[in-house]
Amino acid sequence: MPEQTIHMIDLIRRKRDGGELTPEEIQFLVAGAASQSISQAQLAAWLMAAWIRGLSRNELHALTTAMRFSGEVFDPTPLGKTAVDKHSTGGVGDKTSFLVAPIAAAAGLAVPMISGRALGHTGGTLDKLESIPGYRTLLSSEEFSAVLEKAGASIIGQTQNLVPADRVLYALRDHTGTVESPYLICASIMSKKLAAGLNALVLDVKTGSGAFLRNYADAEFLARLMVRTGEDAGIRIAALLTRMDEPLGRFSGNWLEVWESVELLQNKRHPISADLLELSLVLAGWMIYLGGKAGNAEAGRQRAEELIVSGAAYQVFEQMVAAHGGDTNLFRNPAAFHKPAGLRVLTASRGGYLAAVDCTQVGWAVQRLGAGREQVGGPVSAHAGLEMHVKLGARIQAGEPLCTLFTEEPHRLDQPEQMLRAALTIADEPPQIARMIRQVITSNDIRSAEP
Amino acid sequence: MPEQTIHMIDLIRRKRDGGELTPEEIQFLVAGAASQSISQAQLAAWLMAAWIRGLSRNELHALTTAMRFSGEVFDPTPLGKTAVDKHSTGGVGDKTSFLVAPIAAAAGLAVPMISGRALGHTGGTLDKLESIPGYRTLLSSEEFSAVLEKAGASIIGQTQNLVPADRVLYALRDHTGTVESPYLICASIMSKKLAAGLNALVLDVKTGSGAFLRNYADAEFLARLMVRTGEDAGIRIAALLTRMDEPLGRFSGNWLEVWESVELLQNKRHPISADLLELSLVLAGWMIYLGGKAGNAEAGRQRAEELIVSGAAYQVFEQMVAAHGGDTNLFRNPAAFHKPAGLRVLTASRGGYLAAVDCTQVGWAVQRLGAGREQVGGPVSAHAGLEMHVKLGARIQAGEPLCTLFTEEPHRLDQPEQMLRAALTIADEPPQIARMIRQVITSNDIRSAEP
Repeated sequence: MPEQTIHMIDLIRRKRDGGELTPEEIQFLVAGAASQSISQAQLAAWLMAAWIRGLSRNELHALTTAMRFSGEVFDPTPLGKTAVDKHSTGGVGDKTSFLVAPIAAAAGLAVPMISGRALGHTGGTLDKLESIPGYRTLLSSEEFSAVLEKAGASIIGQTQNLVPADRVLYALRDHTGTVESPYLICASIMSKKLAAGLNALVLDVKTGSGAFLRNYADAEFLARLMVRTGEDAGIRIAALLTRMDEPLGRFSGNWLEVWESVELLQNKRHPISADLLELSLVLAGWMIYLGGKAGNAEAGRQRAEELIVSGAAYQVFEQMVAAHGGDTNLFRNPAAFHKPAGLRVLTASRGGYLAAVDCTQVGWAVQRLGAGREQVGGPVSAHAGLEMHVKLGARIQAGEPLCTLFTEEPHRLDQPEQMLRAALTIADEPPQIARMIRQVITSNDIRSAEP
Repeated sequence: MPEQTIHMIDLIRRKRDGGELTPEEIQFLVAGAASQSISQAQLAAWLMAAWIRGLSRNELHALTTAMRFSGEVFDPTPLGKTAVDKHSTGGVGDKTSFLVAPIAAAAGLAVPMISGRALGHTGGTLDKLESIPGYRTLLSSEEFSAVLEKAGASIIGQTQNLVPADRVLYALRDHTGTVESPYLICASIMSKKLAAGLNALVLDVKTGSGAFLRNYADAEFLARLMVRTGEDAGIRIAALLTRMDEPLGRFSGNWLEVWESVELLQNKRHPISADLLELSLVLAGWMIYLGGKAGNAEAGRQRAEELIVSGAAYQVFEQMVAAHGGDTNLFRNPAAFHKPAGLRVLTASRGGYLAAVDCTQVGWAVQRLGAGREQVGGPVSAHAGLEMHVKLGARIQAGEPLCTLFTEEPHRLDQPEQMLRAALTIADEPPQIARMIRQVITSNDIRSAEP
């Protein structure tokens, strides 16, 4: 056996001491993680060293690239369209995927979107889609291509073979307290997005009381890292820093979010959904612009609005759901399909303004109602969830409904009700509310100021 | 099952973020390491975080204590004597244990000494003792007590049950690049020494070209940590920072070092052994002082010298070796037992002064001659090794012998010869030579300046 020139112990020691690994060394590490030829203990030591010391631009590019190619990659080239996607760092009531994917597809782009399940206090796109009877989230590569060919957009779950190195490393990070590194988060997200063969990507990086990164500076740092990493991988990319300080739109919960999205796509506008529509149009506008179908993001946004008004986006959504096996007849009256076993209306104990929302607590309450899982692989309820009747800054009378809780197991209502009561603050003065889009970071911003 | 209140993931995250663990949390971690109920990956992540962030005084005390009591502990109380020991951080030709243990025992102290094997470029006390035919280094606790009762001193190997947490953590540190942390080194050394039930301990912390810690500041930092940790454990302790910039004494190698020690104990003084004798007398003097058998270290040193001159120390050594099953008849003429299969004399290629020694390289040459192991558990040669004919600063004529290489496999001579030639520097000017004892650190020094 020829002597192996790279030794994992040397890579650990170098990162421990704040040094830099070469692309070949990072490739060795990622291949060893995927094939399990490097021990979990050595990987854990390296991950902790990387968590504390950080990664250089070259290291992050090499890590993302090695992870991206650690398994099967999807090639959208045969579709003959520019492939675009949107990624969100996660929030409560965040259902923009259901709007932006059909809008971008209706604009002539391909949207091969690989999504996840409920995590922590946030819901999961796949769980929401599976509340549509018949919708299959696990497709083969061939089926995925076929849906994209037919509908222009497809939202599926991660296959076993896509980025296997991330599967190993993510499980290990979760086990060893090394999740919250912007570098490791960036490599994990970007490797999966890049493995889908995208030409352009829009990032929705949430900040505020319901975001994983509550601190604005942390969110901005991650956004810059991701834009730079996308740039280094040769795709068009932009990141929007958006506010997540109350549930996005009207509903949080699985079928409830499909319902809200379908109505918006059907051009039925509810006042409580206004923030969701606004954010979705801006995100879709950036996708259309970066995908080359508009001269700038503002023109893209106008195009997005037209594609909703014309019904073109709704048509894509219906085709996509049908191609996945989902029952689109329910979309004629989505409210009628919503059959929770119990509900409770939370009313204001005093008058004033809705001044603050502990949105992470709201998210946990929604999960406890049954929308999330008690344990990995467990079931989720289609009909559990929350309807907000007021938004941050609203003038409220004592006794006025603030929100309605829905569940399939009525004995579950008490704890979430208490959590929600504690999470909503009514005060005498109206709050300062941040703009929905707080900052946009593009390649140009990255070139001018290195993180 | 009641919920466990301590979770390893929280301990990892706290140390990762530079926080402090409570004694209960450290106890949980050490118990989990010893019982293997905490995964290697989680331990590795914590060790890396501790390597980079360091440990507070309370954490180091708690870690050392928890490790100390993770298995069986030895109780020397029934011996009715004060128990003392000496620990060296390791060097080339370092055989002071063979002198200080019998001297301290002859002074009326108990010396329960638990030693190690060859490691890296340094020789191992147990390997040296096993070059004495019949010497058993693995004794039960009962046998250990019996030898101590009879001879006053016993040098044995670490039993399976002594500090099992260190065994797990050390193997993991070796595997994950987390060996060279002064905090983790301190806990590893001190837990084992304290598990032997010592009342007093003298540390020989080496610095220079043959030491593991070449940098003086690093050695001093470790010395202060160890003195403070001993202090916190309630023992009397002092650390001597000593020079290790050339092999200590005349010989390096297994039987060769027994030979040199026996002759010194027999009061036969060889000029090249002068530095070894000097250091041994100072160390033994501190042991005698800290063990309460002299009013200060200088008085202890004088007592040590008397115990050699009187033959009392030699008598203890002979009794100890006999009690371990070793053949003491060989001590009548140790040179006669030395039967290497081949030797080579290295001579000076030019005249001048012996100006510098790359002592780590000298150590590796000695190990390559056969005194060390090719792999863990492999055999070592009793008769391989090195004799130095000159010391640092010596005036040398061209062609004069510098050292003699001994081996049991004559084909092995070439590479060590080259290494030694490269390791010894002859120059026109005499070098600056540091004092043997560069600094003494006692509890008083620790109290006045916290590391």
